[in-house]
Amino acid sequence: MAGSLGPGSGWTAAVRRLLRQFSSAQRPGSPGFQGLPLLVEGQQVGLVVPAVARELRAFPNVFVEVTGGLELRGGHCPEERTEAVAGVLAQLRAEGRLARLARWRDEAYEVRPSFGAPALLNVERAAAPLLGVLQFGAHLNAFVCRQDDETGSWQIFMWLARRSPHKATYPGLLDNLAAGGISAGLGVKETMVKESWEEARVPPKLAAQAQPVGCLSFTYEEMDGEEFGAVVRECLFIFDLEVPEDFTPQVGDGEAQEFYLWPLNKVREAVNSGSFKPNCALVVVDFLFRHGLLHPDHEPLYPELMAVMHQTL
Amino acid sequence: MAGSLGPGSGWTAAVRRLLRQFSSAQRPGSPGFQGLPLLVEGQQVGLVVPAVARELRAFPNVFVEVTGGLELRGGHCPEERTEAVAGVLAQLRAEGRLARLARWRDEAYEVRPSFGAPALLNVERAAAPLLGVLQFGAHLNAFVCRQDDETGSWQIFMWLARRSPHKATYPGLLDNLAAGGISAGLGVKETMVKESWEEARVPPKLAAQAQPVGCLSFTYEEMDGEEFGAVVRECLFIFDLEVPEDFTPQVGDGEAQEFYLWPLNKVREAVNSGSFKPNCALVVVDFLFRHGLLHPDHEPLYPELMAVMHQTL
Repeated sequence: MAGSLGPGSGWTAAVRRLLRQFSSAQRPGSPGFQGLPLLVEGQQVGLVVPAVARELRAFPNVFVEVTGGLELRGGHCPEERTEAVAGVLAQLRAEGRLARLARWRDEAYEVRPSFGAPALLNVERAAAPLLGVLQFGAHLNAFVCRQDDETGSWQIFMWLARRSPHKATYPGLLDNLAAGGISAGLGVKETMVKESWEEARVPPKLAAQAQPVGCLSFTYEEMDGEEFGAVVRECLFIFDLEVPEDFTPQVGDGEAQEFYLWPLNKVREAVNSGSFKPNCALVVVDFLFRHGLLHPDHEPLYPELMAVMHQTL
Repeated sequence: MAGSLGPGSGWTAAVRRLLRQFSSAQRPGSPGFQGLPLLVEGQQVGLVVPAVARELRAFPNVFVEVTGGLELRGGHCPEERTEAVAGVLAQLRAEGRLARLARWRDEAYEVRPSFGAPALLNVERAAAPLLGVLQFGAHLNAFVCRQDDETGSWQIFMWLARRSPHKATYPGLLDNLAAGGISAGLGVKETMVKESWEEARVPPKLAAQAQPVGCLSFTYEEMDGEEFGAVVRECLFIFDLEVPEDFTPQVGDGEAQEFYLWPLNKVREAVNSGSFKPNCALVVVDFLFRHGLLHPDHEPLYPELMAVMHQTL
């Protein structure tokens, strides 16, 4: 199976595209990267590009220039900090200063220096990439195992979603069956079960059987139109769920408009052709790795492709 | 199951120990790390600590000081370079200059800037960590799935090996069922099948059914007694193999002296108590991740533990 993935296939081109998209050149510490650390109580919680830093400096009561970055000084507890930053964002939004704020969703993300640390404040979801805060998400790989009548061998089919053409980001592209950012106050599994119901009508009892199988993490700079970049720092928790043959996802809240059950070679073709939302392509690639669909003897970039999904936090 | 892994258990201490052992502080670019890049034709192929660099500089016909490191100039093709470096190592060994060379095994490793690049020379295996060259290995996780008669739930049991008390490195510690470095001229799967037969008498036909499930990579500084450190840069290709109930490993070449079939909670306990060779502990932790034994809602260091197994190459 993996033998079909030689350099002649579209696969190598797809791998190189993923390596470019999530290139370490977009990461802090790399030459050419100009992100400025955002600090709270001396701990780094975010990373802002120069164009965003310029806007934040206009609020010197909240954001103070310090050695090594910009420090959030508005408030002494999570509630005060949340309020101070919300005030800044509201004003920037009202003045139309940062285009991305037009995507305001009234959904709060917790801001913390690392996954296990207490939240130091909450910010509106639309502002998370502007401040370059670590965003956590939960993604579900739902699949079916079928035995071939003739050969007796097992083949995996994966459920995928097509994003609504009305989504603000990556409209119409392929996505994992269900996925979502982890909002303030929600757990990882809780988020996965909730999104699975909202987006694909997976019964919570079925979704709860999904197994956590690891996490992916990466940092990349996302351009917002031509205006300026934002630093997306993501940590995605991955769940695998073998669903029964008679399960069929249904359109829920409309974020996903259609669902497909595809054999893995067709899924791989869709990665080849760039049909996935980029971070979901990496979730699929991780699934292909874990289920033996990629082979080190046939994939010269095997370690590099693995490494790009796990850029050290 | 994962619920038993709270901060109160030995698990968190074990995680912290692994994070320390494979700490990024031991990696190039980290403060305090003093490795010097080793170059061939302008490409980095290794990393040497100051004590080793001092010895190599005594051979200015072979190792030349350049901006950014030490460049291997002895020879213009792989064969000439191999010979030049072998001459240096033979002399250092004869003079007893580098203790690690006493572990000479007459086994050649290929030296390359990355997995997919052509080999630029071969070096004796014992010298690989002295030159800090990227070492590739293949590790086998062999397991059995058993259904509980009463609950009907499935449980995984893992086959493990205990290293011979006579091994030069990590004698008597636990190891994966079979594992080995990839020698010059051998493929990844070929190495896994070969080691599986040599170390545990896994029939090649059975071992060939193992699935490649990813790779781990990390860099750490290994002290050789009190003398000096060597830079171990490893990329381990991982294979999973579900073996039949009636399969039992047998002692082969004597590298492994005993085998155990343990339920995963007992395997995890062995990680807790530091009973594994450190890099094999990471291979086991990766298996626990992929099989749902660790849970992000119960493990505050979940992303950090994942990241330490995937330090970007």
